[in-house]
Amino acid sequence: MAQGLILAIDAMGGDDAPEVTVKGAELFLAARPGARVRLHGDESRLRPLVSASPERLEIVHTDLVVTSEMKPSQALRRGKGSSMWNAIEDVKEGRAQASVSAGNTGALMAISMLVLRKMDGVHRPAMTAAWPTLRGRSVVLDVGANLEADAAQLVSFAIMGEAYARAILGIDKPTIGILNIGSEEMKGHDEIREAHEWLRNSGLDLDYHGFIEGDDISSGTVDVIVTDGFTGNVALKAGEGVARMLGTRVREALTSGLFSKLGAVLAMGGLKRLREQMNPSNVNGGVLLGLGGVSVKSHGGTDSRGFTRACELAADLATSHYRDEVAANLNKIRQKGMAAE
Amino acid sequence: MAQGLILAIDAMGGDDAPEVTVKGAELFLAARPGARVRLHGDESRLRPLVSASPERLEIVHTDLVVTSEMKPSQALRRGKGSSMWNAIEDVKEGRAQASVSAGNTGALMAISMLVLRKMDGVHRPAMTAAWPTLRGRSVVLDVGANLEADAAQLVSFAIMGEAYARAILGIDKPTIGILNIGSEEMKGHDEIREAHEWLRNSGLDLDYHGFIEGDDISSGTVDVIVTDGFTGNVALKAGEGVARMLGTRVREALTSGLFSKLGAVLAMGGLKRLREQMNPSNVNGGVLLGLGGVSVKSHGGTDSRGFTRACELAADLATSHYRDEVAANLNKIRQKGMAAE
Repeated sequence: MAQGLILAIDAMGGDDAPEVTVKGAELFLAARPGARVRLHGDESRLRPLVSASPERLEIVHTDLVVTSEMKPSQALRRGKGSSMWNAIEDVKEGRAQASVSAGNTGALMAISMLVLRKMDGVHRPAMTAAWPTLRGRSVVLDVGANLEADAAQLVSFAIMGEAYARAILGIDKPTIGILNIGSEEMKGHDEIREAHEWLRNSGLDLDYHGFIEGDDISSGTVDVIVTDGFTGNVALKAGEGVARMLGTRVREALTSGLFSKLGAVLAMGGLKRLREQMNPSNVNGGVLLGLGGVSVKSHGGTDSRGFTRACELAADLATSHYRDEVAANLNKIRQKGMAAE
Repeated sequence: MAQGLILAIDAMGGDDAPEVTVKGAELFLAARPGARVRLHGDESRLRPLVSASPERLEIVHTDLVVTSEMKPSQALRRGKGSSMWNAIEDVKEGRAQASVSAGNTGALMAISMLVLRKMDGVHRPAMTAAWPTLRGRSVVLDVGANLEADAAQLVSFAIMGEAYARAILGIDKPTIGILNIGSEEMKGHDEIREAHEWLRNSGLDLDYHGFIEGDDISSGTVDVIVTDGFTGNVALKAGEGVARMLGTRVREALTSGLFSKLGAVLAMGGLKRLREQMNPSNVNGGVLLGLGGVSVKSHGGTDSRGFTRACELAADLATSHYRDEVAANLNKIRQKGMAAE
């Protein structure tokens, strides 16, 4: 499946780089016998960490690093030749089919957009997040690449999110919903209502469900949740905050007395499986959709397993039909006169 | 404290009315020896449910009910004389100091605004929610009364939320944050940045913390979270959805095997206390702030304990200095030329 695939990895980005990124890259190679990796970064630091498959793992040296403090504009001015920039340039030049970085998000978005350019017909790229639900996992976009989105942009997010969900979740016909609030008669901004009407009547081969509310995300009511970057980012972080608070509370509750402690030990098996399911490592990887190539963002604080997940996500996307499907659908809506300027 | 306080209750609103509302009203009376209640609704259904304190509980008969299906505009046209309307009119006419309803939210907002009018200097009222945090509880507003909010409105939400948090959370000097997203250089809409500058330099005696992100809500970083009604509603429901999903998952995890089951039984004490802390009944009650009187919304699906909490919230607010404090601060910002049109 990923036969012949080459992945470009920014080995220097992330809180625990390069240890985590190198380990993550090796786990990825172990899981995908046909794949190869180009590891960008400081060779003197990377070489001692590399333990296996040297013939499938090439180190591409650079001294330059994009730091977590850099603003996007600084990264654009000073980032050329850095491990992040070089990994993305590999994709542009065809030396790799996808890139992965756990580094500075704003910088990664800016450099990716500059180097890879936008896909034909896409006005604004959108950042995705994988959200664990009662039914499995859903894709939320945009979660922060744009502050606002007009109707045409929301429609393009729906098209991109649908193809993306098919590629990475393996769902044949992903369902789509637009995030809205429930109170009657003031239902939604104009842009939202317009995008809603458009998706209803687009004639595209999409399974559009309609409006959903915030609590539908975790229920798994739809596979793809479409929203603007401000709302999506707030929803995602608010949800993460609640999960973290409840995790703390459950831990406290289970260690608050002798019987509770004993009970917690006995219940460990089930709770461990739950921790596994909800482990951010298992859902790690956001993608800036709508670019001329695949650039995946791993969480900065990820462990090596999480970084491997981001690599697998990049490989799945690079070897999928995602781009052709998006291009075809965007072309159809352009012909119908619903084009983003 | 609530000596002489009279509460007007819509006994017919909510999923399990009037059983839950009557029981809730009686629990409220038991907890507040000085208070009285005016119970609005169908006397033939209410009378048999009333068991105690008849001298402190007056039934005010009406046949009319605002149903959960009614749109706000329909409720305004056809709701006059209903139990909901009559309870709110009690506040306007001074027969009660506050009203409580578990009925149709949109209708309650519309009727409250029409009957109670806006507080002087308030351009748009805002709906509050109490959000459980690691440090206790925080107030989020607006969670759905308005789709959008300009800078002046956000500033007035901050002023109202601050006085409200002091009144109901008993915090002497509540801290305030504006909800935003973190990515640099595109931080926030114009309205948000403007409100931020304004609160920084307002000269008001407010403890303004600055911007916060979605995950700060559950951390309890600030006591009052200011946002527009669309974003606040999505954040609140997204958080509720995550809590519900995790509750289901924990239950599944604890009943997935023999040891887990045994462990769950032993851990019951601690988990029960957690359930207690997180019980929506304990944080029930949203208030439409900025009106000429107190109108509290109880969750429609609440139990009697939750309805009692909403009654207590209404009583606390009605007997606080909330309105004077808001009026004074709004007056100060008007003098500084920062007035809502």
